[in-house]
Amino acid sequence: MIDAVRWLRQDQLIVSEASPETVCMPGCLRLLDQTCLPEQEVYFTVETMPVLIDAIKRLAVRGAPAIGCAAALGMAAVAEHYPEELDAFSAALFQDAEPLASARPTAVNLRWAVERMLKIYREAHPQNVFAARQILRQAALDILAEDIALCRAIGQAGLPLLKEGTSVLTHCNAGALATGDFGTALAPVYAAKEAGRNVRVYSDETRPLLQGSRLTAWELHRAGIEVWTICDNMAAQVMREGRIDLVIVGADRIAANGDTANKIGTFGVAVLAQYHKIPFYVAAPYSTFDLQTPDGSAIRIEERDPQEIACGFGRRTAPEGVHFYNPAFDVTPAGLITGFITERGILHPPFVQMREGK
Amino acid sequence: MIDAVRWLRQDQLIVSEASPETVCMPGCLRLLDQTCLPEQEVYFTVETMPVLIDAIKRLAVRGAPAIGCAAALGMAAVAEHYPEELDAFSAALFQDAEPLASARPTAVNLRWAVERMLKIYREAHPQNVFAARQILRQAALDILAEDIALCRAIGQAGLPLLKEGTSVLTHCNAGALATGDFGTALAPVYAAKEAGRNVRVYSDETRPLLQGSRLTAWELHRAGIEVWTICDNMAAQVMREGRIDLVIVGADRIAANGDTANKIGTFGVAVLAQYHKIPFYVAAPYSTFDLQTPDGSAIRIEERDPQEIACGFGRRTAPEGVHFYNPAFDVTPAGLITGFITERGILHPPFVQMREGK
Repeated sequence: MIDAVRWLRQDQLIVSEASPETVCMPGCLRLLDQTCLPEQEVYFTVETMPVLIDAIKRLAVRGAPAIGCAAALGMAAVAEHYPEELDAFSAALFQDAEPLASARPTAVNLRWAVERMLKIYREAHPQNVFAARQILRQAALDILAEDIALCRAIGQAGLPLLKEGTSVLTHCNAGALATGDFGTALAPVYAAKEAGRNVRVYSDETRPLLQGSRLTAWELHRAGIEVWTICDNMAAQVMREGRIDLVIVGADRIAANGDTANKIGTFGVAVLAQYHKIPFYVAAPYSTFDLQTPDGSAIRIEERDPQEIACGFGRRTAPEGVHFYNPAFDVTPAGLITGFITERGILHPPFVQMREGK
Repeated sequence: MIDAVRWLRQDQLIVSEASPETVCMPGCLRLLDQTCLPEQEVYFTVETMPVLIDAIKRLAVRGAPAIGCAAALGMAAVAEHYPEELDAFSAALFQDAEPLASARPTAVNLRWAVERMLKIYREAHPQNVFAARQILRQAALDILAEDIALCRAIGQAGLPLLKEGTSVLTHCNAGALATGDFGTALAPVYAAKEAGRNVRVYSDETRPLLQGSRLTAWELHRAGIEVWTICDNMAAQVMREGRIDLVIVGADRIAANGDTANKIGTFGVAVLAQYHKIPFYVAAPYSTFDLQTPDGSAIRIEERDPQEIACGFGRRTAPEGVHFYNPAFDVTPAGLITGFITERGILHPPFVQMREGK
């Protein structure tokens, strides 16, 4: 969500970092419309629940942590327009919550954020609408602050892996546009940049939705980091030419044995990294570890609309009548993963100690 | 070139198999414009040298063998319009040859076909324009016939690899659209179909130019063969799910030790096949073996226009200002290749005996 939202704690104003002169009053959330990238940088204002839900559904805001933050901040923003009578206010809040929480069924952070907002609200027992709004604002800011702290900690944990001149390959977008701060997979890259190190990123374009070329390349270039865009099928050649020191990717879910579900194509990159003896890291917060899932075989692979492959760029690229297979994720076996960069340092599977420590 | 050209031997008429009712008189060559696929099936007529050269340059006809056939047939077609006086006829022929031969510098078959046409013409010493045209027609038909025979022989050599129900993964297009008949990599697939076996093909879409989804999927579907289009980065997952029995790809050049240059992405598929213990075959005619090249390190990798990655689908998919790396080919080490399907059977490297037998 970099440049997408800055909700300043002191006065509950929403300021876009991209255009600091733009200051919106409380009650509106400004979001970057990621569907317009990289061609246009378009911001839009969220003041009503239908606009917020639509933004999440059509991927204007995407990436599980960013969706969680946007949902929480959006709930607080929309609540500024709820009735001034407490019962009606509470009714509106709870009525809006379910459609928001189910806007994207697979985004775990979305339902988690909505439920946490409601829980805090319930437990705080506000006595009037002024207090109610204050509670929601603070709860949302806390969620954002926690996500920022997570990104920073992951960045610091991964920082020792990136020396001056290190070249990193990444897949999809697990960067600033996907989180409340500077990302998970890209966090060590931004941390290295902040530490004054010149690093280079090769970004797989990541078919079918091109999050790598549309989003990762956009945000890194904007941050002044050297970025090279390649097609997914060029990763092997780029590795062979010695251009890659390190692979870092994000994760959607990590099983107890370390098997990791992430954007389709991640598994292939891991196999290629092993072949070329290049370290392959997964960067993710602790909350991504799902210790109820013993291994990758228990993770269901979601299939998406074949049209993403057949005509994803405004013109038809495959003939009518053929079959398509469009798995959205794949599972990288733990054995191919060098380590997990988390907010508590770099971990190695299996994660029994995590379960015991829980 | 399936459906692209049928120059019937008996009366020198050109008939499109796609639309058999369309019969053109001698002196025109009908070609399928592959740049319009898969959206439209557009044929165009070649009667002049600029049209032929333009067709080759803009990839309306592509694939080394198809380019060779089209150049030879095109020379004969254009010659129907040359002056009726022999000296002027010969002058026109030789004047047109060089710009045609250099229309695509890396397509070996193009220059080879043009030079062979001229050599036959020179050695035949035609006494009049009627005989001259006859010689050119026959020389062109011979080149086409030889390519058809090559495809058939490769198909027969690979046929034992495909049983009832076999599922093949291929990359790029080395099929009917790339040759004078039914291809090299796809020849065993067509041969299996002709032998009454139901086989299935997974076609990598093959970024950046999408020859897999635009061309391979189109021609196989049209031939009644079950074809599944996937993005390049899905090959690993498809293999992992046990959907692939066999990989067959084409080749641009094969070094003496078996290292094989082919469309970018081929090398990555070979690594994935090895990881999953899936046989990986290269199908190519003997002429693709370049015994002057000791190994893959001597093969220069051509880089193509970054715009193919940045805005290949009519809209911009990567931001301005970022770097792009766009290698057109990669080299698959011989050690990853199970065997080479050629017109003389399935071969295994190294190819010292070929050199000795030459």
